[in-house]
Amino acid sequence: MNQEFEQLASQLIEAGGNLAAKSMVPATSGNFSGKLANGDMAITVSGADKGYLLPENIMRTNADGESYDRRVPSAETLLHVQIYKQFPHVNAVLHAHSLNATVLSQLAQGHVVLANYELLKAFPGVDTHDTQIEIPVFGNDQNIPRLARQVDKYMQVHSAPVAYLIAGHGFYIWGRSVRETLIYIDAMEFLFSCELMKRRIMQ
Amino acid sequence: MNQEFEQLASQLIEAGGNLAAKSMVPATSGNFSGKLANGDMAITVSGADKGYLLPENIMRTNADGESYDRRVPSAETLLHVQIYKQFPHVNAVLHAHSLNATVLSQLAQGHVVLANYELLKAFPGVDTHDTQIEIPVFGNDQNIPRLARQVDKYMQVHSAPVAYLIAGHGFYIWGRSVRETLIYIDAMEFLFSCELMKRRIMQ
Amino acid sequence: MNQEFEQLASQLIEAGGNLAAKSMVPATSGNFSGKLANGDMAITVSGADKGYLLPENIMRTNADGESYDRRVPSAETLLHVQIYKQFPHVNAVLHAHSLNATVLSQLAQGHVVLANYELLKAFPGVDTHDTQIEIPVFGNDQNIPRLARQVDKYMQVHSAPVAYLIAGHGFYIWGRSVRETLIYIDAMEFLFSCELMKRRIMQ
Amino acid sequence: MNQEFEQLASQLIEAGGNLAAKSMVPATSGNFSGKLANGDMAITVSGADKGYLLPENIMRTNADGESYDRRVPSAETLLHVQIYKQFPHVNAVLHAHSLNATVLSQLAQGHVVLANYELLKAFPGVDTHDTQIEIPVFGNDQNIPRLARQVDKYMQVHSAPVAYLIAGHGFYIWGRSVRETLIYIDAMEFLFSCELMKRRIMQ
Repeated sequence: MNQEFEQLASQLIEAGGNLAAKSMVPATSGNFSGKLANGDMAITVSGADKGYLLPENIMRTNADGESYDRRVPSAETLLHVQIYKQFPHVNAVLHAHSLNATVLSQLAQGHVVLANYELLKAFPGVDTHDTQIEIPVFGNDQNIPRLARQVDKYMQVHSAPVAYLIAGHGFYIWGRSVRETLIYIDAMEFLFSCELMKRRIMQ
Repeated sequence: MNQEFEQLASQLIEAGGNLAAKSMVPATSGNFSGKLANGDMAITVSGADKGYLLPENIMRTNADGESYDRRVPSAETLLHVQIYKQFPHVNAVLHAHSLNATVLSQLAQGHVVLANYELLKAFPGVDTHDTQIEIPVFGNDQNIPRLARQVDKYMQVHSAPVAYLIAGHGFYIWGRSVRETLIYIDAMEFLFSCELMKRRIMQ
Repeated sequence: MNQEFEQLASQLIEAGGNLAAKSMVPATSGNFSGKLANGDMAITVSGADKGYLLPENIMRTNADGESYDRRVPSAETLLHVQIYKQFPHVNAVLHAHSLNATVLSQLAQGHVVLANYELLKAFPGVDTHDTQIEIPVFGNDQNIPRLARQVDKYMQVHSAPVAYLIAGHGFYIWGRSVRETLIYIDAMEFLFSCELMKRRIMQ
Repeated sequence: MNQEFEQLASQLIEAGGNLAAKSMVPATSGNFSGKLANGDMAITVSGADKGYLLPENIMRTNADGESYDRRVPSAETLLHVQIYKQFPHVNAVLHAHSLNATVLSQLAQGHVVLANYELLKAFPGVDTHDTQIEIPVFGNDQNIPRLARQVDKYMQVHSAPVAYLIAGHGFYIWGRSVRETLIYIDAMEFLFSCELMKRRIMQ
């Protein structure tokens, strides 16, 4: 079980280096988690530099995000908990804080529509470019339990999004593994960049 | 003959790392091929991460893109086949999926005109900046045989383009070797960036 | 004491490499300093390439920026002196010269307002995104004592800014350590980029 | 004398790697030279990849750009010759082909004005931001002797520019050493980027 945790932690550390190289976790922003077989989480502690995570920056919590020791998990732990409870097949949740996502989340009204991109096929359940997906944008809120309830409420009435944005605050995205989730981030960031580029030309 | 395949495969693997470093194969997009002396192709399998290709991610097909084993070549294999049949001197075809190409392909009406750039001289048959070339843009289509026929039809009635775009889906480009084709990609991406930059300023 | 100076100097050298990798000290621009326990400064000499600083490019001055030998400290030494005198808890001052800061400083009228960004929480004393901070922009002046007095005058009547811009000339930012100040630069540059991106879309 | 040539050649090779890392010599664009003590030039041959120059890609010519062997120097050798004849103190000439320079050269009318930037002080003879410099833009011409005469004519009647642009074709810049010229490129590219950014916002 310890080995399972350590393997997952090392995947999260590597994901942090990967995202930092793409400028997607500026300052100490971003947070990452993975789910263990028994439902516990491995999650980044608050405040660490996500590009240079150390093993001691990844802690263990139960499925409700409660610490087993005195360390404090990321302030946004409950957002991870909500996703794992909503999507039982999900084993990794990554929160990236890119420039494109931040600006797009501030300009968008309620959601971002992504349409007619071949790269949409990178996401689960999409097998043609000739479609559109909606990425909801939630208002930012320092009250994380309240924000988690807002996300949860959305997911009860809408079809499952592949990611969501928080205004001025980057995006959350998830998958069956850390590796799969990194591929989704790559695709999502590309599509956010395309959308912003088009807004720069057409507005 | 085995050695010929392996050398070509290693050139395609290296090309993938090169293009990934320039963010031109996001998620698992892009596909690459080379032609062997007997007309067979070495081509990337579907779904692999093009920045970290392994030897087993490059497979062999005949000149019609048919697999010799049970592995499935890239979904877009017939687009490669069309190019080799159209241009007998071509030995490499690379499909890159850059941000600039994707956005430009969605904004352009039918084709992109590139004019008055010194870098046009990078392309075969161009010896002055004082000219223009047309890069056709085809509508995206999940029916690849139909898309290949559309490309083929275009090439029967127009003078040979040096590359083509697919809307929302990057570009195809080809040359006498993998190395030469990478130089064409470098020049084409530069020119696409120039065009987008000008549209951002002038529209 | 010599060891204290050398440790601080090596942190400044490392900071220079870090900022050069992000294109924030073009040509030989930028200057960096740290405060020693007795109030003396370790500060970059004039004209060195800030991405490849050598130990001999960091010199020692007293708390008023006066050289102990014949070497000449950065032309802008008095701006560092002003900050250390104004903020006793500050132990590092970094001047970065990014593209975003330079352009934004020329377009802004008197100050830049940063509002509703989660990343505002990276700065001292900010615990919510639901706020705004003002970054003053001072007119550039080759008369550094006069410019330092202008900054000082501003700080006497306004609440303490977390950084300031000089028109066409990048920004000054400070913190309790070189490492902390680098995190502030990372956050500030991200926010400046967001602001410029929004101006490109909305104006 | 051989050693002098080899040292200069290795500086040009290193400059090429530096500029390629900044995407300033796409495809096989760009060309570089240095002046030897007797007035001969070390200059890049035509067509080489400027990011990965080999010693055999640097050849020797006399002060008029005439080859000592059968190798053909860069097509634009006479532009280098013109600069060395015009400015006796110059020992290095670099031609960089950046995206920003290419687009700006196509949008500008006759010249680009750079004003009120602190970084102007990077150039020889400039000691304040409170000034402006003019970078002339020459029309591109495949007839290099004619283009060289056009540049020469300009320099006879205008005060010495620090660099010049060729429309759709990057810029030429020069200095007392390869290192100094690289610093000028760094500053010039930064200022070109600032100008383009402002045009994107204000037009």
